[in-house]
Formats: sequence, structure tokens, C-alpha cells
Amino acid sequence: MASSTETPPVPAVEPPPEGKTPAAPVNYLALAEVVLRFLLFASAVVAVVVIVTSKETVLNSRDAKFNYSPALIYFVAALSVAGLYSIITTLLSFYTLLKPGFCPQLLSHFLIVDVLLLGIVSAATGSAGAIAYTGLKGNSHLGWGKVCNVYDKFCTYVGASVAVSLFASIVLALLVLLSLYSISKKIPK
Amino acid sequence: MASSTETPPVPAVEPPPEGKTPAAPVNYLALAEVVLRFLLFASAVVAVVVIVTSKETVLNSRDAKFNYSPALIYFVAALSVAGLYSIITTLLSFYTLLKPGFCPQLLSHFLIVDVLLLGIVSAATGSAGAIAYTGLKGNSHLGWGKVCNVYDKFCTYVGASVAVSLFASIVLALLVLLSLYSISKKIPK
Repeated sequence: MASSTETPPVPAVEPPPEGKTPAAPVNYLALAEVVLRFLLFASAVVAVVVIVTSKETVLNSRDAKFNYSPALIYFVAALSVAGLYSIITTLLSFYTLLKPGFCPQLLSHFLIVDVLLLGIVSAATGSAGAIAYTGLKGNSHLGWGKVCNVYDKFCTYVGASVAVSLFASIVLALLVLLSLYSISKKIPK
Repeated sequence: MASSTETPPVPAVEPPPEGKTPAAPVNYLALAEVVLRFLLFASAVVAVVVIVTSKETVLNSRDAKFNYSPALIYFVAALSVAGLYSIITTLLSFYTLLKPGFCPQLLSHFLIVDVLLLGIVSAATGSAGAIAYTGLKGNSHLGWGKVCNVYDKFCTYVGASVAVSLFASIVLALLVLLSLYSISKKIPK
């Protein structure tokens, strides 16, 4: 027999490095989560930018801005929180896609925040939508006149922002349902 | 040995009847679900009854009712759906408490509706809250006057109804989180 000290033994199969499964299949659930979280980020940013830039001045004296209405201020605050939160969770869920099995406890905490944020963003959409609709149609019973015939650009921007935040609410609901589905798949039958 | 045909053998331990586990411990998660679903039912009914009975007539000519505002009509519709839905789920979750293991597939479908209803009820709370706040404070920038100094009872009732529906939204969020917790407890470590 040859002396084994001269040629070091070459391992036939390389052991998989830590944190990686060899030839892992694409995890479509994790991929869908990354896409949904990115959509949430994009829609929250668009909604906030559109409503913040909606200022309109007519007749050189009277102007309309979002911070004249408490409902629209709450709307901007809620969507800003959703946008900031979704930056973090998009990055973390992308990291989880690359390294499966990374800290599942952390992601379940994000799921709790998802549920709370669904309520907050839906309430913001509802309140801004109610103000925008009242501005568009007025309310003769309560003596509130239309303002959208005067502030044309302002109303268009607020309406577009409400539509985008409705989309963000739907994305948040889909995120919660996706998490429920991926959790329930781990339960043994 | 005695003949075994005369005295039929008495089984030492009676087998548990079908669908019952002997001396089952109280399932606190299922009990909490029944309580939360009943609270959702109660708060939805209270919110709808309060806002429907809020009609007020001043000076024998001008009156205020909830169906003068589209936001309040949506509020009544959303809370009515939540109330009807919670009757069914309260009864079914109570049945599951008595007979554990009854059709878990059915309850996971209810969880999906819980998430959607959380968004719907939150949006209704937001929109009715925005209208109620505008009625209380007015909005001088948009030229909308206060109405709550005229319609005193109407505003009190609408405000109370919005507060109760905020409670219903919180109960719905807790129900979703409770379901998440009880699902995640079934995952083997």
C-alpha cells in the first residue's frame, strides 16, 4: 500500500457549505413575497410623492394643500410608515430568498406588523377617499360645497394617490394571505 | 376453567366514543377565538344600530341621517356584513370548541375572510371618522362649515358608532393574529 502521507486524500463529495442546500429548487413562495413587498414599497412611495406634490394655487391667493385636512395628513403619515417598513422587509425577504432558512422567527414578527399595517393603510385609504369624494361631489345636506371645480389639479392628485394606496392595501392583504399559506404548508398532515 | 359463554366479558376500559377525547384539557386558544368572534358580533351590531338610529330633525324642517353621506352608507354596509359573518363564525367556532378537530379546512377559509374583512372594516372606520371629524371641526380652507353645533345628537351617535367600529377593527386584527399563532403552534420544531 502507498504511503498516505504524501498525497492528501481528496474527498469524493464536497460537503455542502453551511446555510446552503445543494441544488435548491426555486422557492416560488419566497419569490412572490419579495415581489409583493417591492410592490408595496413602490406603491407607498408613489402615493406619498403624488399627494405631497399636489399643492395648487388658484387666483394667486387661495391655495389647496394636503395638510389643510387632518384626514390627508394621517394618510401621508400612514403611507410613509408603510413605505419605510417595506424597504426593510423587501431587503430581508430578498436575503431570505438567497439564503433559505434565515431566521424564520424574525419573519413571523414581520407578519404581525403586516396585519397591523393592513388595518392602518386601509383606514388611511378610507379616510382620504371620503374627503376626496366629498370634495368631488359636495354634500348638499350638510352644506359642504364642491371644491374640485376650483382645485382641479389638487383633486386629480388626491384621487390618484387614493387609488394607489388602495392597491397598496390589496398588496398587504395578499402578503398576509401568502404568509398564512406558506405557514400552513409546514404543518404535517 | 369456567365456561365463557354464560357471562359475557366486561371490558375493563370503555373505549372513548367517536369524536370525543377523554378528559380533554380546555383549549384556551379556541376559547379565546369564540370570545373574540362574539365581541366582533356584538360591536358590529352596536355600531350599526347606533348609526341607523342617529336621525335628528331640527327646526321641524332640516334633518340629518346617515344616508345623506356616501361614506356613512358604506360604513353601515361594511359593519352589517361583519355582523352577519360573525354570527356564522361565532357558532362554528363554538362548535369547534365543543368538538375539537372539526373540519380545520373550513376554519382556514374563514381566516381568509377575516383578513379581507379587516381591510374593509378599517376602511369603513377611516371614512366615517373623516366625515365625522369634518362635521365636528369643519374645514375653513375648503369652505366646509361645522354641522355638529346644529345636529348635536346626530354627531354624538356617529362618533360613538365610529369608536365602536374601531374596537371591531382591533378585534379583527387580534383574530387574525390568534389564528396565525394557533397555526404556527402546529409546526414541528
